[in-house]
Amino acid sequence: MTKRVYNFNPGPSTLPLEVLKKVQADLLNFENTGMSIMEISHRSPEYDKVHNDAIALTKELMGLDDSYKVLFEGGGASTQFAYIPMNFLHEGKVGAYVDTGTWSTKAIKEVKILGKEVYIAGSSKDDGFTFVPQPDEIKFPDDAAYLHITTNNTIKGTQFHQFPAMGDVPLIADMSSDILSHQIDFSKFSMIYAGAQKNLGPSGVTMIVMKEDMLDKIQDGLPSMIDYRTHATKNSLFNTAPTLPIYIVKLVLEWIKDQGGLSAIETINRAKKDIVYGLLDDNPDYFRTPVRKDSRSWMNLVFRLPSEELEQKLVAEAKEAGFIGLKGHRSVGGIRVSLYNAMTLEGAEKVADFIMNFRKNN
Amino acid sequence: MTKRVYNFNPGPSTLPLEVLKKVQADLLNFENTGMSIMEISHRSPEYDKVHNDAIALTKELMGLDDSYKVLFEGGGASTQFAYIPMNFLHEGKVGAYVDTGTWSTKAIKEVKILGKEVYIAGSSKDDGFTFVPQPDEIKFPDDAAYLHITTNNTIKGTQFHQFPAMGDVPLIADMSSDILSHQIDFSKFSMIYAGAQKNLGPSGVTMIVMKEDMLDKIQDGLPSMIDYRTHATKNSLFNTAPTLPIYIVKLVLEWIKDQGGLSAIETINRAKKDIVYGLLDDNPDYFRTPVRKDSRSWMNLVFRLPSEELEQKLVAEAKEAGFIGLKGHRSVGGIRVSLYNAMTLEGAEKVADFIMNFRKNN
Repeated sequence: MTKRVYNFNPGPSTLPLEVLKKVQADLLNFENTGMSIMEISHRSPEYDKVHNDAIALTKELMGLDDSYKVLFEGGGASTQFAYIPMNFLHEGKVGAYVDTGTWSTKAIKEVKILGKEVYIAGSSKDDGFTFVPQPDEIKFPDDAAYLHITTNNTIKGTQFHQFPAMGDVPLIADMSSDILSHQIDFSKFSMIYAGAQKNLGPSGVTMIVMKEDMLDKIQDGLPSMIDYRTHATKNSLFNTAPTLPIYIVKLVLEWIKDQGGLSAIETINRAKKDIVYGLLDDNPDYFRTPVRKDSRSWMNLVFRLPSEELEQKLVAEAKEAGFIGLKGHRSVGGIRVSLYNAMTLEGAEKVADFIMNFRKNN
Repeated sequence: MTKRVYNFNPGPSTLPLEVLKKVQADLLNFENTGMSIMEISHRSPEYDKVHNDAIALTKELMGLDDSYKVLFEGGGASTQFAYIPMNFLHEGKVGAYVDTGTWSTKAIKEVKILGKEVYIAGSSKDDGFTFVPQPDEIKFPDDAAYLHITTNNTIKGTQFHQFPAMGDVPLIADMSSDILSHQIDFSKFSMIYAGAQKNLGPSGVTMIVMKEDMLDKIQDGLPSMIDYRTHATKNSLFNTAPTLPIYIVKLVLEWIKDQGGLSAIETINRAKKDIVYGLLDDNPDYFRTPVRKDSRSWMNLVFRLPSEELEQKLVAEAKEAGFIGLKGHRSVGGIRVSLYNAMTLEGAEKVADFIMNFRKNN
């Protein structure tokens, strides 16, 4: 068996080794049922515990009370881009969106496809999405149906570190790529959603955290699987849930708790990003960081080398050395170091050493 | 480690042991990548091969040519209940549905929620859904947008064994619970869809097999993730696909091929259901089979004992003896023996022996 690599993929991405080992160990026989977790009923007591543990752990880690529901759906965050306006954007209202590129741009597109009205509450488009608007740069009507933000952009390498004051307008956030990576006041949000495949587990399940009063704002006449009330009422078991992905999410949530919760995770993630950004900032003659400092992502650190040839050389040599997934997204080029929760501090140190050595030799 | 049980769960259900062992063995290191299948990019060459192999194997096992597309989505078959009329049921057209209970009833409900018109092309409602209408009992307008059937009802224990002649009307089938269980002429269908969690793999992915000419019939103005053309154009990689479930589906498809394809699978499945139905038919004083003989399911064999007390006793003693999941659905009661592809002939023989012994002793 080949050694495991340091996996800097932007998503699907590295998962905690302890979690993978647990999945592996129990794969043929989950908790002495004589069956795999994949083979047991989504209505069995054994699965029920997994499902409800995942929900309880999510609320515990986020510090949320029972005024929040945790739902699991399929289809990824991209499906939610449409479901959100279908549920909440009533005739005569506007959906306010902060456009920080890529995912938020796609979310906006779905509202327009539905023929509903978008209000651009803030945008960094004119600057190539190299920053996220700060709270005082975000403006929206008092009667907007909601304000939607994408908390982290995996491709541009930007992240919200401050959130706007909302008044009565619900704040909805796509947190697919930075959920549970640091301490924030989750109670500021009326809805949080995230495809699992970065910080939560494998692809195939979307986590939705919804303040209960949002359920009263849903339009009637929606298909059952699109109406969030269906999932809220049936505890996400209206139909067969994606049980294997949810089981792995539960193990990841337990792992986060075992690390010491979000406070400990934040400490490690801060140290990881400081190592890499520190190296980049110490060598401004060689590394160019396009993102404005107040908007730098802790999850996806993007930078350029003096030439594309050097970038290609770095990616190729890194792969040889066991550092996978450092190539920037094809739409922006350059280098991207993704430091999700499951990437170890050791991994961040080693990749920084590798990059520094590359700089010395090239 | 406890011995594996004989798992007669109606879904999620037993999977081939060989498949589970392969998943387990490769869980930390998929094909020498040094990463789990869950950790590699959905756009990597390694995953791409898995994805395209699953598509090619589906078409090969179904005997379909390149006029068919194989798509993978999330959300289960219940999501498709709404997506089908959203895509294909245009203003002024009717969607024809055969109502064989439970799933088809739910599919019909979603059309009505959308305010679209349903035409009931056949129904066994008045007889408690104890049979499926035969081809000459199914009537629909020549200009229906489509005819929808549910090929197998897991709860009632019914199954289509003959399909209506369609003329120009597209035939759409929910095959969630009997897909790839026997040889049929799949080219009669314009669209086949199936949640994976019975014959295909774990829950969390829905397989959709679509004749290409259906794509020309889709209404404009649908959200990207709802419009089948998005998935057809992007080979189901518009967003991050549920890679782990699709990987396991691929292994199950390979397993079916290794068994000898659908011809061999059908032979085994026929032998399995003959053993159990044979036992029931030989003891009509003790076992009552509610389903009309021409409509009996090969996948879910439902029957009653002389009393509910005896039924409870059988389920409890069976569980003790290592036969899991024999309890009928709460809405119908009685006993249900689910004999999906992955249940071995030995398993069917052993459960039949157990039931016969129970009859002798009770």
